[in-house]
Amino acid sequence: MQCDQTTRGSELLLGMDRSSDTPMHVQLEGALRDAIRSGRFADGTKLPASRVLAAELSCSRWVVVEAYQQLTAEGYLQARAGGGTVVFSPSPPAEDIPRTPVPAPPAVLVDFEPGIPDLAAFPRSAWLRALQHTVRSLPPHDLNYGADAGVPVLRRVLSEHLARTRGVRTDADGVLVCAGVTHGLTLLCEVLRERGHRQVAVEDPGWPRLSKAVRRAGLTPVQVPVDEEGLVVDALWRTSARAVLVSPAHQFPAGVVLSPSRRTALLDWARECDAVVFEDDYDAEYRYDRRPVGTLQGLAPDQVAYLGTVSKTLGPGVGIGWLVAPGELRPALVGLRDCGDPVPATLDQMALAHLIESGSLDRHLRRTRSSYVERLNTLRTALAQHLPGARIQGADAGLHLTLLLPDDADEAALVREARRLGVLAAGLGDYHSGTSPRPGLVIGYGQARRRQITEGIAALAEAYRTTRRVGN
Amino acid sequence: MQCDQTTRGSELLLGMDRSSDTPMHVQLEGALRDAIRSGRFADGTKLPASRVLAAELSCSRWVVVEAYQQLTAEGYLQARAGGGTVVFSPSPPAEDIPRTPVPAPPAVLVDFEPGIPDLAAFPRSAWLRALQHTVRSLPPHDLNYGADAGVPVLRRVLSEHLARTRGVRTDADGVLVCAGVTHGLTLLCEVLRERGHRQVAVEDPGWPRLSKAVRRAGLTPVQVPVDEEGLVVDALWRTSARAVLVSPAHQFPAGVVLSPSRRTALLDWARECDAVVFEDDYDAEYRYDRRPVGTLQGLAPDQVAYLGTVSKTLGPGVGIGWLVAPGELRPALVGLRDCGDPVPATLDQMALAHLIESGSLDRHLRRTRSSYVERLNTLRTALAQHLPGARIQGADAGLHLTLLLPDDADEAALVREARRLGVLAAGLGDYHSGTSPRPGLVIGYGQARRRQITEGIAALAEAYRTTRRVGN
Repeated sequence: MQCDQTTRGSELLLGMDRSSDTPMHVQLEGALRDAIRSGRFADGTKLPASRVLAAELSCSRWVVVEAYQQLTAEGYLQARAGGGTVVFSPSPPAEDIPRTPVPAPPAVLVDFEPGIPDLAAFPRSAWLRALQHTVRSLPPHDLNYGADAGVPVLRRVLSEHLARTRGVRTDADGVLVCAGVTHGLTLLCEVLRERGHRQVAVEDPGWPRLSKAVRRAGLTPVQVPVDEEGLVVDALWRTSARAVLVSPAHQFPAGVVLSPSRRTALLDWARECDAVVFEDDYDAEYRYDRRPVGTLQGLAPDQVAYLGTVSKTLGPGVGIGWLVAPGELRPALVGLRDCGDPVPATLDQMALAHLIESGSLDRHLRRTRSSYVERLNTLRTALAQHLPGARIQGADAGLHLTLLLPDDADEAALVREARRLGVLAAGLGDYHSGTSPRPGLVIGYGQARRRQITEGIAALAEAYRTTRRVGN
Repeated sequence: MQCDQTTRGSELLLGMDRSSDTPMHVQLEGALRDAIRSGRFADGTKLPASRVLAAELSCSRWVVVEAYQQLTAEGYLQARAGGGTVVFSPSPPAEDIPRTPVPAPPAVLVDFEPGIPDLAAFPRSAWLRALQHTVRSLPPHDLNYGADAGVPVLRRVLSEHLARTRGVRTDADGVLVCAGVTHGLTLLCEVLRERGHRQVAVEDPGWPRLSKAVRRAGLTPVQVPVDEEGLVVDALWRTSARAVLVSPAHQFPAGVVLSPSRRTALLDWARECDAVVFEDDYDAEYRYDRRPVGTLQGLAPDQVAYLGTVSKTLGPGVGIGWLVAPGELRPALVGLRDCGDPVPATLDQMALAHLIESGSLDRHLRRTRSSYVERLNTLRTALAQHLPGARIQGADAGLHLTLLLPDDADEAALVREARRLGVLAAGLGDYHSGTSPRPGLVIGYGQARRRQITEGIAALAEAYRTTRRVGN
C-alpha cells in the first residue's frame, strides 16, 4: 500500500495491515489507541473528520466511525459539541517500570532452611491420579461456589484422618478447610477481635509470620517465653491475653515438646480464664523416636482450636490446611467466607480427600518418615564429629533440629560466614522477639540430602571456629 | 483369650485383639483413651499398677508402662506424687453435635440464579491437560512457598492476556494473583485502611458480598446510586469516600455500561480527589452486541485498580483472580502475603498459565460465547411472547439479563410464586440497599438450557399475573 502524504492518518497506517485477518476497524482502533497512549497524539489533538480519514486510508467511512465510537466509549476520544473528535489523554503515558536488577546471590550448596519438606519427594503420580479422578468424576455443580466451610467429602475424610492419627475429637461439621495454619490463625483472630479480644499470646521464640498474621487481624501479639518444657504457662497467667497460640507437639523453633504438667497447666489456664488455645500442629506427622503426643484438642475440644496443614507433608504450594474450632466459634468463622475470605480450589480439596482415602498420603508419610530419620541420624553423626561442643535441644521430630551452640559462638557472624561458604542455615536469634538467651542454629533437613548434610555440618563447624568470640 | 475377673483391666480387653497387626501397647493405649473419653473411666480414677495390669492382660509390663507414659504425655493420665497413676479428665465427654435435618427444598426445574457460568461447559479435558503438564514438569522447588505476588509465569501470561483482550496497561510485575474479585477487593481495602481511608463507595444496586468484604476490612461501604448511564458520579462527589468500586463494562445487577461522559467524570473525580477507582471487570469476557468497552485502567493506570477473575469463565471452584493496582499500592498489597494472606495453589496458577498460553481459554470463551448468545436470544423471544410489558435494561453482555417489570408487579411475591413453580430467579430488590425504585428481576442464563429458558419465562409470566397488585 502506498502513502505519500505525511498526515496524521498516514501515521496510523504504520500499524495496519490489509492482508491481516483482523478487521480494519479493529486495526485502526488499536493504532489510534497506541498513538494516544504513547503520547504521539497529545491531549486535545483534533482528529480528521471520519470521511477525510477514510479517504486517506482508502477504507470505508464506517471503519473510521466504528473505531472513533469505540475509543470514545473507552474514553480515549471525546466528541466536541461543535463537531469533530479530539484526543482525551490527560494522564501522561505510563512509564515503563524499571526492573531492579536482581544481584546474583552466592551459590547455595547446602540448604538447611527450616520449615520446608523434601519437595523432590512430592507424590506427583498420586496427586495427578487424584486430580484426574476428581476432574473426570466431579458433578458440574460442584464447580460452583463451594460450601463455605469446605467441600463436605474433604471435611469428612479429614475428621476421620485427624481422629485416627492425632486423636482430634470432631466430625465433618467441625472441620473448616483453609489455606494453611497462618490463614486459619487469621480467621480465629478476626473472630476473637469481634468478640472484644485485643491480644493473642504467642510463643517466644516463634515463627515471625504468625505474629504478623495476628497483627493483620487487628490484635496485638504478646510474647510468652518457651523453655525446655515448652510454653511457660506461669508467664501466660501474667498477661491479659485470653487466647494463646502454641505448638505443643514440636515447638518451632525450639524443638521441645510441651511437658505433661505444662499441658495440664495450660488447659487449667484456658478453663479458668475462659480462654482459647490455638494448637498449631504444623508438623506432628513426623515424630521419629516414639509415636507423637496426642493433641490438646482431644483433651479439651471446647477450649482448643486445632490447626493443621499439608505444607510440611506435601508442600506449601498445595495450599490446603484445616481448622477444628470449639463449636461456639464455628458460625462466626464460617461467616467470614460470606465476606470474601477465600476457600481453597474445589478440585484441590476433592483431590486431597481422594489422596487420603486411597491411602496414598499414608504411603507418602511412611516413605518420607524413613528418609527424614536417615537424614536426622546423619546429622547427629556429623554434629558429634564436627561440632561436639554443641547440644541438640528437643525431640526427634519434624523437619528441623535445634542446635544450642557453645557460649563463645557469635551466631550472626557464624550464619553470615556459613552463607559465604554456601551453607544456608537460620540463627535461633531470628525467631526471638528480643535477644536470644544463647547462640543457636535451626537446621532444616527437608531440603538437604545425606551427603550434603555431612558437608554442610563440616562447613558450619568451620564457620563457628573462624567467627567465635575471642577471650571466652 | 479368657478373662473371668471383672476388673478395670478386663474392661480394656474388650477393645484389644492379640492377633491384630497393631502392637499391644498401641491397642491398650487406644482402649484406655476411649474409656477416659467416653467417661467410663472418670476423672480421678486410680489405674492399676503397671505390673498388676500386665499380669491381668497377660502381657509384658513394658506394654503397660509405654501406654501409661503416652497417655500421661497427652494429658489423659497423671502420675501421682505418692506413686500410682490416675485418670485426668476434667472436661465432660464431647456430646455428639446434633445434625440439623435439612428440609427438602422444592425442586428447581429452571435455575435463573445470576452470576454463575455454564458449569457443564467447564473445559475438563483442557484443564486436566494443563494440570498434567504442570505436575509432570514443575521443578521441585516451585512447590515451596510461591512468590508473594503469584507465580511469575502466570503474571506474565495474564499481563499479556489482559493487555490484548481488555487494554489493561501493565507488565508481569504489576499483576497480583488472588482468589477472585472479592478477595482482591479485601486486599485493596486493607491497604487503604492502613493509609487512613474510612469509607469505600459502592454501587447501589450491587453485589452484597462486596459490601461485606469492605466491612470485613474495617471500612464503611457508602452506597452510590446507579442509573442507566451507570454510577452517578455527581452523587459520588457528595460523599467523603476517596475510593469507589465500580463495574463499568457491565454493571451488576443493573446490566448497564458506564457511559463515556461518566467514564470521564469518574476519572476526573479520581484525579481531583487523589482517589482510587476499583474496576470490577468480573464478566467482561462476554459482550455479544459489540466488542467490550476497554478498561478504565487502560486510561488511567495510576488511578485505577483493576480486578478480574475466572469465576465467570471457568467457574468459581477454580478460585483464581487477579489485581492490577497502581504502582504505589503494590508493595503494601504484596506485603499482606507475608502476614498470611493466602495465594492460590501454585499448581493451579501454573495450570491456568498453560491454559491461556495454549489457546485453550480463548477456545473455551468462543464456545461459551456462542452458547450464551443463543440463550440470550431465546430469552428475548420468550420475554417478548410471555412478558411483553417488561423492559430489558442494559447491554447484551455477561451471564445475566436485567428485567424491569410493569409497575403493578409485586416483585417479592412474584419471586416466591416462581419458586413454588420450580423457577429460581432473583429480585432486583435483593441487590438494593434500600427500596428498589421499581420491580425487576435478575435472570441468570449460565445454568439454564434453551428449552428450560422458554419454560422458565412462561412460568415467571404466570407468577407475575397471579401476584400483581390489584388496582394499579
